[in-house]
Amino acid sequence: MESRFLAERLRKLKEELKNLKLEAYLCLHPANIQYFTGSPQAGELALGLLVTLDNPPTLFIPEMGAYQAQLQAKIKLETEVFKVGDEALKKLRNTLKGFKVLGFDDASQARISKLKVKGLSLKPHPEIPEKLRVVKDESELEALRKAARILRKGFDAVFQVLKPGVREREVAAAAEYALRVGGSDFYAFPTLVASGSRSAHPHGSPTARRIREGDVVVVDLGAKFSGYCVDATRTFMVGRVKPAVSKAYRAVLEAYRAAVGGVKPGMRGFEADMLARKTIQTWGFGEFFTHGLGHGVGLEVHEAPRLSPGSRDLLRAGSTFTLEPGIYLPGRFGVRVENTVLLTENGIKVLTGWSGKEFISFN
Amino acid sequence: MESRFLAERLRKLKEELKNLKLEAYLCLHPANIQYFTGSPQAGELALGLLVTLDNPPTLFIPEMGAYQAQLQAKIKLETEVFKVGDEALKKLRNTLKGFKVLGFDDASQARISKLKVKGLSLKPHPEIPEKLRVVKDESELEALRKAARILRKGFDAVFQVLKPGVREREVAAAAEYALRVGGSDFYAFPTLVASGSRSAHPHGSPTARRIREGDVVVVDLGAKFSGYCVDATRTFMVGRVKPAVSKAYRAVLEAYRAAVGGVKPGMRGFEADMLARKTIQTWGFGEFFTHGLGHGVGLEVHEAPRLSPGSRDLLRAGSTFTLEPGIYLPGRFGVRVENTVLLTENGIKVLTGWSGKEFISFN
Repeated sequence: MESRFLAERLRKLKEELKNLKLEAYLCLHPANIQYFTGSPQAGELALGLLVTLDNPPTLFIPEMGAYQAQLQAKIKLETEVFKVGDEALKKLRNTLKGFKVLGFDDASQARISKLKVKGLSLKPHPEIPEKLRVVKDESELEALRKAARILRKGFDAVFQVLKPGVREREVAAAAEYALRVGGSDFYAFPTLVASGSRSAHPHGSPTARRIREGDVVVVDLGAKFSGYCVDATRTFMVGRVKPAVSKAYRAVLEAYRAAVGGVKPGMRGFEADMLARKTIQTWGFGEFFTHGLGHGVGLEVHEAPRLSPGSRDLLRAGSTFTLEPGIYLPGRFGVRVENTVLLTENGIKVLTGWSGKEFISFN
Repeated sequence: MESRFLAERLRKLKEELKNLKLEAYLCLHPANIQYFTGSPQAGELALGLLVTLDNPPTLFIPEMGAYQAQLQAKIKLETEVFKVGDEALKKLRNTLKGFKVLGFDDASQARISKLKVKGLSLKPHPEIPEKLRVVKDESELEALRKAARILRKGFDAVFQVLKPGVREREVAAAAEYALRVGGSDFYAFPTLVASGSRSAHPHGSPTARRIREGDVVVVDLGAKFSGYCVDATRTFMVGRVKPAVSKAYRAVLEAYRAAVGGVKPGMRGFEADMLARKTIQTWGFGEFFTHGLGHGVGLEVHEAPRLSPGSRDLLRAGSTFTLEPGIYLPGRFGVRVENTVLLTENGIKVLTGWSGKEFISFN
């Protein structure tokens, strides 16, 4: 990533700090540390990143090995390198003693209690990095597009392997193999493969169950590139399409298309959700759409904005999120269609489109 | 899992609560929720588990789908099922209003602030479940042994695929494929494959780098069964063994054997660490063993006890942890040997032994 993107993120962060009259900000959350350093390794390994108004940020990290030089070439960082994690913590605590009030993002209560020093007030301001991260810059979109290209290979592999007799976990293994070889940094989340009546469960982790003729199979895959996640689901039908499945799938597809066509900048999360929900209600499946329409994706697979019944989140151009209507009929089957999309000034642009066909075709 | 194990865990938890004069305990941490319900799905999906002295525990969960009946058959739970997550949160907050003082484990500050209700004092007591979880019961050991059997298949796959020209990420893909098909629930952690000079980095994620003749390759794999993690590392040599690599590997192997032979119940974490560290120091590599000897593994891949220079953790029979001495020579290469082991009254029993051979043999 070019350093101008990092410089711009830091500039905006400092602007927010000035507005809130904070002298400094401490990032403890891995995704925020990556966001301001541009380094997935820093996000993974660092204890914290301290950003002050005047000086270059300081990264507190036990050990960066091969990545240190790379990181320092990209951004002016006074990287603190220690061989043992406890020393980095001690050094961070000592540095914090120089401050009276410090904004910070979020961490576990146990972690925060280790950072309490006399005379320092730690003020939670998780909304500051969230506000910046919710609108993606061009370097982030590039990573997301790359992740989307990798994701397609995962679905190609599913399409190749899916047939009666194969186990759900073999489908997951084939998809993950293709993602890894295709260049995914690990996975954005654990692959879901749910077949037969298990597909009625929205979070169906793959089991040893063998897929049978007549099964609905819901496959939810995530790829990750340079720390950026994409998330998509396809519903497959093994064999002849049953009328009940066909009907539910048409309802979900229509709801998905209503969202793709209707979501615009300036809408609230609940309004976007309602576009899809109304369609599904019209089809008579309202009570079986048991989750929200979508969630933001980026450095985290679940981040702002939320597109769900209660969400007041404002949808802005430059945000990336999922659109994933689903219908789950307990004991029978479930269907879901999901893509990661980018909201532009002109509306939705789909990032994770896939040229392959589900076994069911509605065209 | 048999319900007598769950009953025993709850009995011990209630005993701790009585000792601390707490009327109830709220588990927010996924691994703790799984521990007291026996359900990985509950751990993944629930908002919280409330355990009172007198009544059966109550699980607050948005939706359990297919798993609900299974869960209720195992343990008496007043499962609260809601279709939308926010409703479960509302219900949990309402329930908390009935209490004055509540012990709880740990969660992010943002999560905890959502649970603050008037007149309630939430007291952090993360040590209560930790104290129970650190000694594994027979049902946990069974899951760990199963995970260890799956892990072996991952290393078999690495052994098959490792040769000059193959990419690091292809090695990771092959290992993960074997783990998944072998029955691993996703992975205990992201696979590490670090070859050539990259092996000098203890956290080397796989890249597109092609492995070459003469490379050292460090592979760190994790498998998971029924929520239980195992973790092991093997160091491979592609081609002829260089004397410098041979020397470092002998030092690490000797340190590993010193730990396997010497760690006993009643020792402190730092004492165990010292057994291995002294050996490596004797070989002259002391400054290049840049991390602790090991960490507990179970429902989490990093849990109590810690085996590291600063750790006062008491090592008890029935605990499972890693022993993983390593030497990392910056810019040159690194070597590590790691197994997940069980501490018994008589000493260490290795769980993740592997019959395959590294390319280097020292026998």
